[in-house]
Amino acid sequence: MTDSLTHFNDQNRAKMVDVTDKAVTHRVATATGQISMHPATLQRIHDGQIKKGDVLAVAQVAGIMAAKQTSNLIPMCHLIPLTGVDIHFSDNDTDTITVDVLVKTKHVTGVEIEALLAVQVTLLTIYDMCKAIDRGMLISDIHLVEKDGGKSGHFVYHDTPES
Amino acid sequence: MTDSLTHFNDQNRAKMVDVTDKAVTHRVATATGQISMHPATLQRIHDGQIKKGDVLAVAQVAGIMAAKQTSNLIPMCHLIPLTGVDIHFSDNDTDTITVDVLVKTKHVTGVEIEALLAVQVTLLTIYDMCKAIDRGMLISDIHLVEKDGGKSGHFVYHDTPES
Amino acid sequence: MTDSLTHFNDQNRAKMVDVTDKAVTHRVATATGQISMHPATLQRIHDGQIKKGDVLAVAQVAGIMAAKQTSNLIPMCHLIPLTGVDIHFSDNDTDTITVDVLVKTKHVTGVEIEALLAVQVTLLTIYDMCKAIDRGMLISDIHLVEKDGGKSGHFVYHDTPES
Amino acid sequence: MTDSLTHFNDQNRAKMVDVTDKAVTHRVATATGQISMHPATLQRIHDGQIKKGDVLAVAQVAGIMAAKQTSNLIPMCHLIPLTGVDIHFSDNDTDTITVDVLVKTKHVTGVEIEALLAVQVTLLTIYDMCKAIDRGMLISDIHLVEKDGGKSGHFVYHDTPES
Amino acid sequence: MTDSLTHFNDQNRAKMVDVTDKAVTHRVATATGQISMHPATLQRIHDGQIKKGDVLAVAQVAGIMAAKQTSNLIPMCHLIPLTGVDIHFSDNDTDTITVDVLVKTKHVTGVEIEALLAVQVTLLTIYDMCKAIDRGMLISDIHLVEKDGGKSGHFVYHDTPES
Amino acid sequence: MTDSLTHFNDQNRAKMVDVTDKAVTHRVATATGQISMHPATLQRIHDGQIKKGDVLAVAQVAGIMAAKQTSNLIPMCHLIPLTGVDIHFSDNDTDTITVDVLVKTKHVTGVEIEALLAVQVTLLTIYDMCKAIDRGMLISDIHLVEKDGGKSGHFVYHDTPES
Repeated sequence: MTDSLTHFNDQNRAKMVDVTDKAVTHRVATATGQISMHPATLQRIHDGQIKKGDVLAVAQVAGIMAAKQTSNLIPMCHLIPLTGVDIHFSDNDTDTITVDVLVKTKHVTGVEIEALLAVQVTLLTIYDMCKAIDRGMLISDIHLVEKDGGKSGHFVYHDTPES
Repeated sequence: MTDSLTHFNDQNRAKMVDVTDKAVTHRVATATGQISMHPATLQRIHDGQIKKGDVLAVAQVAGIMAAKQTSNLIPMCHLIPLTGVDIHFSDNDTDTITVDVLVKTKHVTGVEIEALLAVQVTLLTIYDMCKAIDRGMLISDIHLVEKDGGKSGHFVYHDTPES
Repeated sequence: MTDSLTHFNDQNRAKMVDVTDKAVTHRVATATGQISMHPATLQRIHDGQIKKGDVLAVAQVAGIMAAKQTSNLIPMCHLIPLTGVDIHFSDNDTDTITVDVLVKTKHVTGVEIEALLAVQVTLLTIYDMCKAIDRGMLISDIHLVEKDGGKSGHFVYHDTPES
Repeated sequence: MTDSLTHFNDQNRAKMVDVTDKAVTHRVATATGQISMHPATLQRIHDGQIKKGDVLAVAQVAGIMAAKQTSNLIPMCHLIPLTGVDIHFSDNDTDTITVDVLVKTKHVTGVEIEALLAVQVTLLTIYDMCKAIDRGMLISDIHLVEKDGGKSGHFVYHDTPES
Repeated sequence: MTDSLTHFNDQNRAKMVDVTDKAVTHRVATATGQISMHPATLQRIHDGQIKKGDVLAVAQVAGIMAAKQTSNLIPMCHLIPLTGVDIHFSDNDTDTITVDVLVKTKHVTGVEIEALLAVQVTLLTIYDMCKAIDRGMLISDIHLVEKDGGKSGHFVYHDTPES
Repeated sequence: MTDSLTHFNDQNRAKMVDVTDKAVTHRVATATGQISMHPATLQRIHDGQIKKGDVLAVAQVAGIMAAKQTSNLIPMCHLIPLTGVDIHFSDNDTDTITVDVLVKTKHVTGVEIEALLAVQVTLLTIYDMCKAIDRGMLISDIHLVEKDGGKSGHFVYHDTPES
């Protein structure tokens, strides 16, 4: 663990960290999250896909567009021209949809926040599209899965954080 | 439970639901969510607040600004001029910060999504401000707590959804 | 025909027209436009829909989100909280897709520009999704179809403008 | 013609194409489009320019600003820092204004969509500024004129697409 | 003078003030500001206007569009659908341009910040358009001139604030 | 002093200057500005900071986020991925707060406008947070302090511009 929160200046106020001299490298981040719902809601989403009224298609567009808005929403984030965003869905056939997002860039800082925001907005769009039939949905288990590139190197998420 | 996903048109494609004739009423929504972290990270956030390098102050501004961006991020959301947004923080003194958001409007549709997005962005900003010391943070338990106003009436979240 | 361009002030410079005292009424506008392409491109879009790689689903989300951005893109447009947006697609089974957009509000000004912008962005998203296989697509025939509500009353587009 | 729509992933869902390893090169794109109107409307625009109430000046600012918003409006577009945008107007002295847009960058992907969106928003701004006197204007003939740079090389638009 | 900063909640953190129950009334605000420059720069702006290369036309569009972005830039500002924005320029024929902005709405809160932001962005656009020939320009004297409507009533700016 | 306004094309209309072939270099800009207020208002801000209701913390987040919005607000500005933004506050203990902003990038154009816009929005946020108790605040003395990098080289602001 490093010693300090880097986002504060000598007045102990927030700043956008200076990355001017960091190296341009390939950077990739994957993040995940899930939404749990009433089994009948998942059934409806499945039905809809077959009939082309596709909740997940809308959610996916929302997630990709959100990744591009990261620096406008997260105050200390640098603008990063992303070179790739890909979103996958899976579900447990009962009551939970899992969203996995992969984000890539070739830039001076990483894209963890971009991947996490895309996960959040994808999940929230599913909520929005289905809220008329199920307001009690639960969004959870959002975390970085893996990231690579940059000085801090490779990171893999462990369920039990090391102490 | 109602019978249909309202966000689809007669071509089974997504649309923005027609709310032209819905009544303008007071509407309020509260949502919650939490972020778990290494105990040393929470300690650092506590220290920072005392020294004025305030992670939560930044996160809170981010959350309030995000609430105003909801219709730009969630594809089928209507633009709603919000009349109030308030964010509260609490923590378990060990490893978890809880965010509670209250959103109000006087409009033709509800503000559940606004409250949930504010929760998500507030939590993600905490992650962003602290990621240099702790990339393994987990965001979870994001859900609507309560909403009131509008035709669908009063909703209170129950841990165990009714069947 | 009225006598003047309303968007200019007493310095003959552009202004946002004062609509403070106009009545809040139901307003609706429909607009249309089309994109012509290589027959093989339309075939590919048809195939994709069947296989779920749905160009039109993405274009439609883009069009709806664009309608909400109108006042940020068209300098003298007022911000209008839209109450409904619906987009339909049809094609001639050969080489042309037609997009029809319906926009509604209950406000002091009309939503013609919102409908037209949604048409444009929907068409351009189709272009973007297919440009790897067909850069020579042509976007044309974009016009208001009909509008109602407000002081200027009912308007229906005629192919041959009256003189 | 290439074989596939590149914007879909292995779930046949939309993705932002991975351009991480594409070369940074000079890229330029020109696009065009036109708006037809009542002859009296074009006369009014001409008069306005002389008197400084300049419809085209507003439209041009709108077009340049829109080019910079492309990745926020077109879902699968990459953010591209543009290095130059230039818009020219011409008209047939009767009833039609033509808009030509040139966009440049030095980046890993092309700027065709940026040029086309700038054309569209420039034309729509002319419509908006004049709609009080002429709602029947027609926007048409929007297409890429020429593009250069990148792996797909040089493209020139032909009125009759090759079969 | 009232007793408290209204933008803080019971945790002494910033909130968006609750205006749910405030009355919808006509509200108007005017603001002003100026930019001083090298006399040769003002001469060049004057020349440009005559030749149609109009710095002020661009600045004015920027100011109007900025007024509409106020709630996206100023964290605790409510979104207000503006009903009119008008910008006037005057200069002392030597080295200073003055910008005056009038903003109107019919809403639950005032538009002072919208008017002030429009002044700032109009002035900064003049700076941007001329910075190649004069980087030493000075922006100053930005203040509210007058506002009316709402519970706080009529306000007129006095050079010497009362004690 | 150079001879021409670079932001105009051969039709004497505004364009985004072509910077395609300019060199990527380190660029830094500092800008400043101040806001004068009633002494009791500054006292309230001081008190608030101690009690954690921190006006300046909100203003600072607003300023940093505004720097990232520059190309969306100032029409002819290029999008520049900023590599660092830092804002400092000082005050005269009586009635005036001074804001100093430092912006960095490694790009083909400078960041003067980004620094100036961050100053403006930081100051206006202070105004917004305090306007309930003091509408007569005055924003002034906004100017570039120093910039370095790029072909135009080093610039330092002098109170008395050279003739």
